[in-house]
Amino acid sequence: MPAPPMESSSNQFRPLDHHYLVEYIKATPALCSHFGNKLDDMKIKEVGDGNLNFVFIVVSPSASLVIKQALPYVRSIGESWPMSKERSYFEAEALREQGRLCPAHVPKVYHYDRNMSLIGMRYLEPPHIILRKGLIAGIEYPLLAEHISEFMARTLFFTSLLSLTTTQHKSSVAKFCGNMELCRLTEQVIFSDPYKVSQHNHWTSPYLDRDAEAVREDNILKLEVAELKSRFCERAQALIHGDLHTGSVMVTRDSTQVIDPEFSFYGPMGFDIGAFIGNLFLAYFAQDGHANHGNDRKLYKEWILKTIVETWSLFDKKFTALWDDSNNSSGEAYLPEIYNNGELQLLVKRKYMKDLLHDTLGFAAAKMIRRIVGVAHVEDFESISDAATRARCEGQALHVAKMIMKERRKFEAITGVVSAIKEFHK
Amino acid sequence: MPAPPMESSSNQFRPLDHHYLVEYIKATPALCSHFGNKLDDMKIKEVGDGNLNFVFIVVSPSASLVIKQALPYVRSIGESWPMSKERSYFEAEALREQGRLCPAHVPKVYHYDRNMSLIGMRYLEPPHIILRKGLIAGIEYPLLAEHISEFMARTLFFTSLLSLTTTQHKSSVAKFCGNMELCRLTEQVIFSDPYKVSQHNHWTSPYLDRDAEAVREDNILKLEVAELKSRFCERAQALIHGDLHTGSVMVTRDSTQVIDPEFSFYGPMGFDIGAFIGNLFLAYFAQDGHANHGNDRKLYKEWILKTIVETWSLFDKKFTALWDDSNNSSGEAYLPEIYNNGELQLLVKRKYMKDLLHDTLGFAAAKMIRRIVGVAHVEDFESISDAATRARCEGQALHVAKMIMKERRKFEAITGVVSAIKEFHK
Repeated sequence: MPAPPMESSSNQFRPLDHHYLVEYIKATPALCSHFGNKLDDMKIKEVGDGNLNFVFIVVSPSASLVIKQALPYVRSIGESWPMSKERSYFEAEALREQGRLCPAHVPKVYHYDRNMSLIGMRYLEPPHIILRKGLIAGIEYPLLAEHISEFMARTLFFTSLLSLTTTQHKSSVAKFCGNMELCRLTEQVIFSDPYKVSQHNHWTSPYLDRDAEAVREDNILKLEVAELKSRFCERAQALIHGDLHTGSVMVTRDSTQVIDPEFSFYGPMGFDIGAFIGNLFLAYFAQDGHANHGNDRKLYKEWILKTIVETWSLFDKKFTALWDDSNNSSGEAYLPEIYNNGELQLLVKRKYMKDLLHDTLGFAAAKMIRRIVGVAHVEDFESISDAATRARCEGQALHVAKMIMKERRKFEAITGVVSAIKEFHK
Repeated sequence: MPAPPMESSSNQFRPLDHHYLVEYIKATPALCSHFGNKLDDMKIKEVGDGNLNFVFIVVSPSASLVIKQALPYVRSIGESWPMSKERSYFEAEALREQGRLCPAHVPKVYHYDRNMSLIGMRYLEPPHIILRKGLIAGIEYPLLAEHISEFMARTLFFTSLLSLTTTQHKSSVAKFCGNMELCRLTEQVIFSDPYKVSQHNHWTSPYLDRDAEAVREDNILKLEVAELKSRFCERAQALIHGDLHTGSVMVTRDSTQVIDPEFSFYGPMGFDIGAFIGNLFLAYFAQDGHANHGNDRKLYKEWILKTIVETWSLFDKKFTALWDDSNNSSGEAYLPEIYNNGELQLLVKRKYMKDLLHDTLGFAAAKMIRRIVGVAHVEDFESISDAATRARCEGQALHVAKMIMKERRKFEAITGVVSAIKEFHK
């Protein structure tokens, strides 16, 4: 029986299954033509290992793509935890905007259907793997810092007031305010739950019982996390990815692709940079748990620290280069008629980048803490089977994260942070 | 001829004149009934002395009201400077919200017509005068600090994340992003024009030529004003009035009424408090120009400084009292389960209020500077007819404003600022 004709814009929402997915593709010209209208040999695999969505890989002899569908609830929990499927709209909008600004590092969107909360996009074919898995396996990615700094510099710069007029900026801010439900999830799991008794929290018990308690009793830490939460909720600095950890990046030796921006909204830049760097720190502290007789991971730990330094340094370089080149842009934060001499421009940029480094460190620390004593942990640690070893790795990461959050304003450069960590780890 | 029936929601925009205003009132039930349907003895006076709008006072033997209409351009300049009449929508929304939160100090709205950009509201009958005129005349208002601090504490607290959920907050932020044109006017005249060569700028020449130039050449000042502009553009902290100078407040000895919130949007709280305090500082520095043999204004200057101190101190007291009382509110910035001990609550509040004081001082200084070397000056100085005297007053205010903007983070309390000014003025 032929599939009924479908207008992708008039579909009512319906969760996908294999059978309906085939029908849907056949009825959607943008997807059909992607496969050269040869739809008979399509192979479909559901691979959504995340908590929230369906993800289907569709491969034919001539082409491939991914179909991602948001469900109106948290998939791993079920309909008892509802969550707006409109997040798919913000993901599609962010993918398109980030793809426009940095096409080399964002999968192309072929099709978006708002009613179906469905995005058709490039399939990141093997050997692409999730960066987090590569870091656990001890694989070096020589271009990672270069690529991710390019992504961050371009997407953050061009959506900030360094590049936009305040009119453009306020319009976009208003639009992405609609993604509030996903923002609220972040607020809860990153800025709130780890600092209070919550049924969602867990940690490697009994080893870290006292550490988890210490987080909940640390007045200075709570003072700092309040400031970070306030920035997250109130500061519309740029269109951020909103969930830029190492699970949202797919890599090969030569390719770096940023996926899953469903948490995107106008927030503080440092939240993205901090998410990435914070997760590299977690990967670093997990290495001792992955060491064995054949590989002590010492060199790999050095590589991770080098990648952290390079990520920030290259970001700093690229971001300020975009700024230097922007004299004819429409950005309204620093009008050329006012910021009209070299000394002043240097002063302004130095202050901007130093404030951004401090934000980055603060958010990096918040991301680390929540992965150790909050609801959602990371495979970097979870894959360490010996609990005592895992707890030792996590405890070190937690200790350093608390130090970074409290002392972040004292660091003048990323190298100082890495030195402090090396010193601590001796 | 009887007026044709009008549905207030279906009117097309048409600028008011006396004749049409009468027709409009007759056709609008909410306005008719305000006058007890006795419309024959209405007296109408147009009093819009501002730059932007029509303002009609309508008085009958039984009742009175004000009709304010926004025009789609800047009234004082003409159609060559277009400006969205939708500002009237945001003014009406803000008047209603502020009126709900602080009815004692906000004129009641009787009627709003979006198509006509028209607000019908309470007429603030004599002896109400614009506060700025009272300050020029040297009149003491013993309840001013008490009242204005009440207005600021309540409107700012209850529209911030100390009282709102992030869902409520983001919805309101999105709505008020629509008032971007008015925000842009502020950005230009306060944070940009004074720091560059602009045809709009003027000052008491030739006396202040060198001072105006010095503002344009002061790298440190420009670094600071960039940070303040960034906060104004990016930080959605609370629903602010957006133009809370002494010309937006009407007073008698017993009454304080805040009017004209057409610049309202979600911005930094310190912008409102700073606008008010900055304009009191301007009034203070203008007093020497109003002194004469009969009145040296010395006591009045003391009263102004006392009022500044009390405004901040009472604001601080009322705002933190609302915070103390809010344990059962829906505010999500500081969840009680996290901020769960007295010492921590004290720490958090102290930090919040200190940051707010520093923002307040920064914005106060920006407001002062722009009134001396920018496009729009204040009657406090303009009414000093002797140019040399005026320039001396303005020069002192400018000097102190620059100091405050640069040194604001060093002040622990408002009393320190006032002491510094007294010291300078010796």
